[in-house]
Amino acid sequence: MTTTPRPAAARTDNPAPTAASVPASDTGAGLDSGLLSPVRAGTAVEAAVSDSAWLQAMLDAEAALARAQAHCGTVPVAAAAAITAAARAEHLDLVELARAARETANPVVGMIRMLTAVVAADAPHAAEYVHRGSTSQDILDTGAMLVARRALDIVIGDLRRTAALLADLAAAHRDTVMAGRTLALHAVPTTFGLKAAGWHHLVRDCLIRLQQVADRLPVSLGGSAGTLAGYLHYAGPDTDAPSLVAELTAAFARETQLAEPVLPWHALRTPIADLGAALAHTTGALGKIAADVLVLARTEIGEAAEGQVAGRGVSSAMPHKRNPVLATLIRSASLQVPALAQVLTQCLVSEDERSAGVWHTEWLPLRECLRLTGGAARTAAELVGGLTVHTDRMRANLAATGGQIASERLCAVLALRLGRTPAKDLLTQASLHAARTARPLAAVLEELPPLQGLFAPGELADLLDPAGCTGAAGALVDRALAGRRATPTHPDLGAK
Amino acid sequence: MTTTPRPAAARTDNPAPTAASVPASDTGAGLDSGLLSPVRAGTAVEAAVSDSAWLQAMLDAEAALARAQAHCGTVPVAAAAAITAAARAEHLDLVELARAARETANPVVGMIRMLTAVVAADAPHAAEYVHRGSTSQDILDTGAMLVARRALDIVIGDLRRTAALLADLAAAHRDTVMAGRTLALHAVPTTFGLKAAGWHHLVRDCLIRLQQVADRLPVSLGGSAGTLAGYLHYAGPDTDAPSLVAELTAAFARETQLAEPVLPWHALRTPIADLGAALAHTTGALGKIAADVLVLARTEIGEAAEGQVAGRGVSSAMPHKRNPVLATLIRSASLQVPALAQVLTQCLVSEDERSAGVWHTEWLPLRECLRLTGGAARTAAELVGGLTVHTDRMRANLAATGGQIASERLCAVLALRLGRTPAKDLLTQASLHAARTARPLAAVLEELPPLQGLFAPGELADLLDPAGCTGAAGALVDRALAGRRATPTHPDLGAK
Amino acid sequence: MTTTPRPAAARTDNPAPTAASVPASDTGAGLDSGLLSPVRAGTAVEAAVSDSAWLQAMLDAEAALARAQAHCGTVPVAAAAAITAAARAEHLDLVELARAARETANPVVGMIRMLTAVVAADAPHAAEYVHRGSTSQDILDTGAMLVARRALDIVIGDLRRTAALLADLAAAHRDTVMAGRTLALHAVPTTFGLKAAGWHHLVRDCLIRLQQVADRLPVSLGGSAGTLAGYLHYAGPDTDAPSLVAELTAAFARETQLAEPVLPWHALRTPIADLGAALAHTTGALGKIAADVLVLARTEIGEAAEGQVAGRGVSSAMPHKRNPVLATLIRSASLQVPALAQVLTQCLVSEDERSAGVWHTEWLPLRECLRLTGGAARTAAELVGGLTVHTDRMRANLAATGGQIASERLCAVLALRLGRTPAKDLLTQASLHAARTARPLAAVLEELPPLQGLFAPGELADLLDPAGCTGAAGALVDRALAGRRATPTHPDLGAK
Amino acid sequence: MTTTPRPAAARTDNPAPTAASVPASDTGAGLDSGLLSPVRAGTAVEAAVSDSAWLQAMLDAEAALARAQAHCGTVPVAAAAAITAAARAEHLDLVELARAARETANPVVGMIRMLTAVVAADAPHAAEYVHRGSTSQDILDTGAMLVARRALDIVIGDLRRTAALLADLAAAHRDTVMAGRTLALHAVPTTFGLKAAGWHHLVRDCLIRLQQVADRLPVSLGGSAGTLAGYLHYAGPDTDAPSLVAELTAAFARETQLAEPVLPWHALRTPIADLGAALAHTTGALGKIAADVLVLARTEIGEAAEGQVAGRGVSSAMPHKRNPVLATLIRSASLQVPALAQVLTQCLVSEDERSAGVWHTEWLPLRECLRLTGGAARTAAELVGGLTVHTDRMRANLAATGGQIASERLCAVLALRLGRTPAKDLLTQASLHAARTARPLAAVLEELPPLQGLFAPGELADLLDPAGCTGAAGALVDRALAGRRATPTHPDLGAK
Repeated sequence: MTTTPRPAAARTDNPAPTAASVPASDTGAGLDSGLLSPVRAGTAVEAAVSDSAWLQAMLDAEAALARAQAHCGTVPVAAAAAITAAARAEHLDLVELARAARETANPVVGMIRMLTAVVAADAPHAAEYVHRGSTSQDILDTGAMLVARRALDIVIGDLRRTAALLADLAAAHRDTVMAGRTLALHAVPTTFGLKAAGWHHLVRDCLIRLQQVADRLPVSLGGSAGTLAGYLHYAGPDTDAPSLVAELTAAFARETQLAEPVLPWHALRTPIADLGAALAHTTGALGKIAADVLVLARTEIGEAAEGQVAGRGVSSAMPHKRNPVLATLIRSASLQVPALAQVLTQCLVSEDERSAGVWHTEWLPLRECLRLTGGAARTAAELVGGLTVHTDRMRANLAATGGQIASERLCAVLALRLGRTPAKDLLTQASLHAARTARPLAAVLEELPPLQGLFAPGELADLLDPAGCTGAAGALVDRALAGRRATPTHPDLGAK
Repeated sequence: MTTTPRPAAARTDNPAPTAASVPASDTGAGLDSGLLSPVRAGTAVEAAVSDSAWLQAMLDAEAALARAQAHCGTVPVAAAAAITAAARAEHLDLVELARAARETANPVVGMIRMLTAVVAADAPHAAEYVHRGSTSQDILDTGAMLVARRALDIVIGDLRRTAALLADLAAAHRDTVMAGRTLALHAVPTTFGLKAAGWHHLVRDCLIRLQQVADRLPVSLGGSAGTLAGYLHYAGPDTDAPSLVAELTAAFARETQLAEPVLPWHALRTPIADLGAALAHTTGALGKIAADVLVLARTEIGEAAEGQVAGRGVSSAMPHKRNPVLATLIRSASLQVPALAQVLTQCLVSEDERSAGVWHTEWLPLRECLRLTGGAARTAAELVGGLTVHTDRMRANLAATGGQIASERLCAVLALRLGRTPAKDLLTQASLHAARTARPLAAVLEELPPLQGLFAPGELADLLDPAGCTGAAGALVDRALAGRRATPTHPDLGAK
Repeated sequence: MTTTPRPAAARTDNPAPTAASVPASDTGAGLDSGLLSPVRAGTAVEAAVSDSAWLQAMLDAEAALARAQAHCGTVPVAAAAAITAAARAEHLDLVELARAARETANPVVGMIRMLTAVVAADAPHAAEYVHRGSTSQDILDTGAMLVARRALDIVIGDLRRTAALLADLAAAHRDTVMAGRTLALHAVPTTFGLKAAGWHHLVRDCLIRLQQVADRLPVSLGGSAGTLAGYLHYAGPDTDAPSLVAELTAAFARETQLAEPVLPWHALRTPIADLGAALAHTTGALGKIAADVLVLARTEIGEAAEGQVAGRGVSSAMPHKRNPVLATLIRSASLQVPALAQVLTQCLVSEDERSAGVWHTEWLPLRECLRLTGGAARTAAELVGGLTVHTDRMRANLAATGGQIASERLCAVLALRLGRTPAKDLLTQASLHAARTARPLAAVLEELPPLQGLFAPGELADLLDPAGCTGAAGALVDRALAGRRATPTHPDLGAK
Repeated sequence: MTTTPRPAAARTDNPAPTAASVPASDTGAGLDSGLLSPVRAGTAVEAAVSDSAWLQAMLDAEAALARAQAHCGTVPVAAAAAITAAARAEHLDLVELARAARETANPVVGMIRMLTAVVAADAPHAAEYVHRGSTSQDILDTGAMLVARRALDIVIGDLRRTAALLADLAAAHRDTVMAGRTLALHAVPTTFGLKAAGWHHLVRDCLIRLQQVADRLPVSLGGSAGTLAGYLHYAGPDTDAPSLVAELTAAFARETQLAEPVLPWHALRTPIADLGAALAHTTGALGKIAADVLVLARTEIGEAAEGQVAGRGVSSAMPHKRNPVLATLIRSASLQVPALAQVLTQCLVSEDERSAGVWHTEWLPLRECLRLTGGAARTAAELVGGLTVHTDRMRANLAATGGQIASERLCAVLALRLGRTPAKDLLTQASLHAARTARPLAAVLEELPPLQGLFAPGELADLLDPAGCTGAAGALVDRALAGRRATPTHPDLGAK
C-alpha cells in the first residue's frame, strides 16, 4: 500500500496523546468481550472456555485428584472434601493469578498457592493435601480436557440441531431444480435438496469426529516426568506401583468423567492434536455451507437469503442493505481455525518429558479453536434455521442461458446418434454462437443442417428442459437421508 | 539481514549470464529428483506418488470406470477391455500433458484426448466409450485416492516396522534409568524404556488413524455436478436412476478396491481433509521421536546416537563429525507437513458444485504430505532400527547434579515428617546452595540443623539414589506393551 | 465422508495389483512434470528453480568461491579456472546425488565428491582447491540465493507486464460505471476503472517488495560455524582476519552478483523469511485479482470473461463451458503460498550455529513458493492481457435492483432535508417494501406522504441515476495512475 | 492416544454437573485475563490492544473524522468538538456492544448508535454529524491502525532496549570462546560474542521492518465502496471531488497522525498483511534467541542461565528447579504468531469492494499477533537483561571432546602437508578411534606413523587449542556492532 508516511515530527515529538489514549487502568475486564470476534460474542461456548471457566476446571481437577487419592487411601477423606469445597474460582483473584504466571510460565503454581491459602483458612489440616504428589501439567491438562468436553457438549448440541434442520431442508427441496455451478459458471442442473443433503452429510461427518474425540478426552496423570513417582512417594514405600497407578488413574477418571489414558501424555500430545483436527474439520464444513450461501445470496443470483430479523444485517451507510451476516461470521471462523489447529498439530513435536515452550503454545490456540468453532456452530444453526429459499429465482436463473445448461444431456443424446466427437464439436460451436448472439440454444440448433430431421417433434424442447437433467439427484437425497434417524455414534465411523 | 545491495549496473546491464545459467533444454526430467527433499529421495513412496504414478492411477480410474459400466451394461465388455489395455502411462506424453493442463486447469481433459487416440489406434469402436458420461473430477479424485492408498500401504508398512522396533527397545530398556527432563532441565529420574514406550504409543496412534483413513478412501463418482446425470443420459431414458447409481458405484468401488461413498464428494472434501489430518499427525509423532533423539545425541548429553553406517553423517568440513542425519531429516518433514495439511483442511471451504481454484489447490499439497510422511516413516524405521543407547552416559548424567535430581522424592519424605511447606522451602534453599557451591546435595543437607537425626543411617543416600525414584515407569512400560501383539485395527480406535 | 470400507480381504490378500501399478523403473524423470500444478507447468520460472537449475546454481557458487579465493590469493588462478570449467550440472548424476543426500542430510557433500572427480580428470592439481575451507551451507545457501534471484527476475518481469496492462485497463475504464459490491450484495456504484486501479496498486506493492528483496539477496560465507575459520586456516597463520573476511566476502559477492552480508547468516535466516513474506504477499495480491474476476465471470453476473483462446477452458463433459481457467490457476497458487511461506518464517526459530532439521526444512517450501508465485505472475499477465469487459452487463446489473443501489446518495440528500434518522428509517422501509413487491424504488418513494413535494421535477430520477453516484472514483483512478510511469525502485518504498 | 472412553452413562445421564461448573453469570470480565498467555499477561501491549483500547481507537477515529470534516467545512466545528468530547470508551457498554455486533457482523454499527445517543444527550445538534457520510470499515480500519501504531510504539521501545543490551553482551564477550554447535553436535569453536552479535543483528532487522511498517500505517477513508461518495454527497453537489478527497484525506491523516494512502484500501489489504509479516518476523527472531538460550541452559551444557529473581522459575513439585521461564514464554509466542500472520496474508485474497467474511477474519489474528509479539519483546528485554553467562562451563565443554572440536583446523594444516583427501581420511579415522576409546585426539594422533615428525614440538598442542580456532569471530563482532549507534531508520533498509 503506497502511503505518505506520517511526518517524523509526529513520530518523535508527540507520543503523549498516543499513550494517553490507552485506558490507564485497563485490567482484565476489558481485554476481551468478544468485540473483535462477533461469531462467538455472548455465546454459551464463549463462557464455557473463558479464563474463569478454565480456572474453575483446573480447580475441579485439583479437587477430583484429592478425592481420587482419598479413594486410594493416600489423602484423608475429610481433606479431600475440604479441598473440594474450597476449589471455587470466585475465591481466587484471576488477574493476579494471570500475571503471576509470567514468573513460572504457567498459572498452576500460583493457583496452588492461592488455593492452599483458601483451604488453610477453613480447614488447616487439609492444606497439606492440596496438589499432593502432583505437578502443574497434570492439573492444567486435566483442566483443559474438562474445558474441552464442556465446550464440545455445546458444539455437538448446536451441530445436531443444524443437522436436523438441514435434513428437513433437503427433504423439503428434494426436487427443487436449480443450476449446478462449477468453476463459477452454470454447469448442469441439480437440486437444492442435493445441495442441502451434502451440507447435512458434512455436518454429520463433523458430529462423528467430534463425538469420538469428546468421548476419549483423557485425564492427565503423570507427576513431574510422567512416572507418577510423586504420587507413589506419598503413598509410602510399601505401595504396589502398578496397583496404585491403575487405581488412582481410574478414580481420577471417574471423578472427572474423563477417559483413562494408557500412558501419561505429558509429552504425547495426541489428545490436543485430535481436538485441533476435529475442530478445524468442523469449521471447514460449516465454512462450505457459508460459502455456498454467500454465492446464492448475491444480488444477481438471489436464490437464498438469511432469515430477516429486525436490525440484522443493516449497514451503517446503506439503507437498502440486508447483509448476510451469519454466513459472513461463519466464514470468518473457518478462515482462522485451520491455522490455529495446525499450531496444535505442530505441538506434537516437542522434546523431552515436558517441552520448554511447546506445551505452553497449546493453550491459547486450543481455546480459540473451541470458541470459534462453537460460535460457528451456533451461528450455523441460526443460519440454517432461518434460511429463505427463492425457488422463483432458481427457475429464472436456470433459464438465463437459453438452454445451454442442458448441453451435457443433449450432447449425450447426439453422441448416441452422431458419434461423440461430432456431437461435442457441433454443440460447442452452437453454444458459442448462441452465447455470442444472445439467442436461445434451441433456435441455433434448429437451423443447423446436420440436425435436420434428427429430433422428433418436441423432442429438442424436452431435452433442453432442466427438470429432466437432474440425474440421480432425488435418489441421492433419499440415500443421504436414509440414515438420518440413526444417531451417529462411535465406533461407527460412518459405515453406510 | 543487513546487506549491501548488488550494484544497479549488475541488475540491469548484465542479465545474460543469469539467464544462461538456466539449462536451456530443461524438461520435466530435472524438475524434481529429490535433491531438495532428502527425507524421501529414492524411497518407495516417492515413486508411488510421482507424476507417472499419478497419471497411471488416473488411467486406472478410467479403465475401472469402463469395466464398471460394462458390468452395468452401459458399455460393451470388449470396449472396457480395450480401454483397460490402452490405459498405460507409458503410452502418453507426460510433459505435454502437464503443459496442456494450463488450458483446462486440470490434466484430465488432455489425458482423455490422448487416451482416446491410443484406444482408437487399436480398437476404433471402443474409443467412443472412453470417459463416457464422466467428468474430469471423477477421474482425478479417484486417481488421487488410488495414489493415496498405494502410498499409505507403504507408510503403514514402515510404521508397523517402526512400532515393532520401538516395542523391542522399550522392553529391552524397561529398567534403564535416565534423567527425566522438563523445561530443558533435569527434573526427576525416568527410564529409557518409558520414553521408548511413549514413542511406540505415538506410532500406534498414527497407525490407527492412517489405517482407518486408508480403509475408507472412496471412489469419486458424480458426473458434471454430482448428480451422475451424465452416466444416466448414456444409460437411456428407461434407466432406474437409484438402481444404476447403486450398481455403478458398487462396481466402480469393486474394480478399484476403494470404498463406496454415500454421496458424490466433489464439493464435500472430507476424504482429502482426513488424509491431511492423519498425515500431519504422523509426521508430528515421528517429529517427537526425532526431537528427543536430537537432544539425547547432543555432544554434552551423549545418551543416544544414530547407527553408524560408512559415510553416513559425515561433514564436508569437519572430520570428527557423525551427524544425526536421520533425525534431522524426520524433523524437516515434521516442520512442513502440518502447514501443507492445513491447506487441505482449508479446502473444505469451497463454493458451488466445484470450486474454481479450491479443488485445484489440493493436488500438490496432498502429494507433498504423502511423500514427506512416507519419507519420514521410512527414515524413522532406519533411525529406530539403528539407534545406539549409551547407558553409561545416562548414569553419568544422572550423577551430574550431585543428587538434585532426587529432590522431589526427598521433599515428599521430608514433607511427611516436617510438613510440606517447611520441607519444600528447606530443600529449595539447600538446592540453591548446593548448585552455587558445586557441592553434592547430600553434603549440604547433612550440615543443616533441622535435619539432624531425622534420617536413619544410610537413609539419605538411599533416598538420593535415582534408581529408587522412577515411580511406576516399569509398570507403565508393561501396560503400554501389553497390547503390542494385538494389531490395531479399526473400528477399535484404541480402547485399552 | 461416510463410506463403506473396502472389504478386509481386499486389504490383505490382494496387495499385488496395487504395487504393480506403480511404474517399476520410475526414476527422477517422472517425479514432477507439472502435472499437479498447472499454474506453473512449462513456465520459465519452473525451469529456473528445477533441481537441475538448483544444482547448477550450487556449482556456480563453488566456482565463484574459487575465483573469489583466487582474487584473494588463497587459491591459484588456474585452479579456479579449472573448477569453473568443470562446474556444469550436466557432468553430474542428479538422481544419484539426490539419493546420496539421505546419508548426509544435504546434497552438497555428494556434489563436492562428484565435482572433485570431474576436476581431477582434467586438472589434477586443481582438485585440491574444490570447496577449500568451505562448508556445505555456504554453497547451498548461496546457490539458493542465485536460484531465487534468477526466479525473481522472471517474476518481476511478468508483474511489470501485468502492472502495465492493468494501468491501461484502469485508464480505459476510468468512467465505466458498475455495481460496487460489499458482503456479496450490491452496495453503491463504483467504476471498473477504480477496481482495476486497485489491482494495479496491489501489483505495484508487490513489485516494490520483490525488487527490494531481490536486490539484497546475500551470498552465504561463514564456514563451518559462521566464523570463516576454515577459509582463514588455509590462508595461513599470518593472515589478517578482518581484511581477508572483508576482501573474500566482497569478491564472492562480485562474482555471484549477490549482495554482501554484514554477518554470516547460517543461523540468522532473515533472507529466507523475507523471500517467503514477499512471495506470499504477491500471490495474495494476484489472488485478489483472480477472486474478483471469478465473481465478475459468474453466469448471472457476466461482467468480465477471460480471453477466448481455442481449446482454453473447455470441459470434458459440457460443450457450452468456457471456464475461467487462468483465474482458477492463480487462485490455486494463492491458497498454497501463504502456508508455505509461513514455514519459512517459522524457520527463523532455529537453534545453534546450524539447526538439525530447521535449515533442511527451508529448501522445498522456498522452491515451491518461487515457482507457484512465478506461475501465478505469468498467468496473471495472460489473464489481464486477455480480459474482456462486458459494459452492457455492468449497466444491466446496475439496473437490476430498481434503483436501490443509489439509496446511500438518496439518504444523504434526504438527511439534509429531514434529518438523518428519519431519512434512513424511511429509506430502509421503502427499500424493504420495494424488494418485497419487486417494484422500482422510485415508484415506492413517489407514493410516500413525507416525500410529497420534497423533490423538484426530475430530481428523484436524477438522484437515482447510478452514474451520478460514483463519488471520487475517477479522481482516484487519476491519483493511482499518476505515478505509473515512475518505475518503482527501492529505496522508494512507495512514497506518494 | 489410547484411552478408555468415559462410560456411556456418564455421557448421557449426568450432564448437569458439567454445565453447572461453568460460572452462570460469566460476563466479559472473565473471558480473558491473560491466564492462558503468560507471555503477555499484564504487559503494556496487552492493555494497548484490549477491547477497551480498540473501542477507544475506533471512537478516536470517529472524532478525528469529524474534526477533519470540520476542517473541510462539511461539519460544524462545534459539532466536531462535541463528538470529540463524547467519544470516550467509558461512556459505552462494551459487552452489550460486542454482542450487538453479531447482528451486523461488525461492532461499528452499534457503536455509532451508542455514540450518537451520548452526543445527543449533551449536544443535540451535533448528533446529526456523527459518522457523517462514512462507513463502518473506515472507522474499524482506522481504529485498527491506531491500535497497531500504539502497540508498535511499545514493541519498538522494548526491542530497542533489547538490542542495546545485546550489543553490550556481544561487546563484553567478544573473545569468550565456546563450542560452536551444528546438527546438535560440537562443530568448531566460536565465541559467545559472535552469537550475541547475531542475536543483535536479528533484532535490528526486526526494528527496521517494524519501524517502516509503523511509519506507514494509513488512515482508511473510502466510504461505502471505496469511492468516498458518501462524504461527497454531504458536501453538496458543487464540490470538487479531487480537491475534497485530497483535503479530507490529508486532514484525517493529520488528526490521527497516521499516513495518507493513495487509494482507499478497503479491498487492498497490504497494510494488514505487512503488519502480519513484520510481527511474525519479529517473534521468529526472538524465538531464535530463546531457542539458543534453552540449549545453553540445559543441565548438561549449563553455559547460560536466566537471571535469578525470587520465585521465578519455581516448580510446583521439584524444589531444585529454576526453570528458564522467559525463554519458554518467548518460544511459545514464536510458535503461534507465524500461523496467525499467515491468516492475515491470506486475507489479501478477498473478493469485491468488501468481502463477506475475509475482512472480518483479520481482527482477532491481528490483535493476537500484536500482543504476542509485544509480550515476546518485553520478555526478551527481561531475558537478555538478566542473562548469566557461565564462561567456566564454556571452557569445560570445549575440552569435553578431547580436542576433536579443533579437527577442522588440524585438517587444514595437514591438508597443506599431506594433501586434502589423505588428511581428512586420517583425521576421520583418528577421531572415530579417539571417540570409541575415550582418549584425547592428541594421544591418538601422536601414535600414528604418518604423522611422525610432521609437527614441531608443541605444535600439535597449539593446533588443538580451541582459542586459536575462532577464525574471524572477533572481527565479525566488531563489524556487526560498528553501526550500533546509528539508529536504523527508513528508508535505509539496512545498507551496510
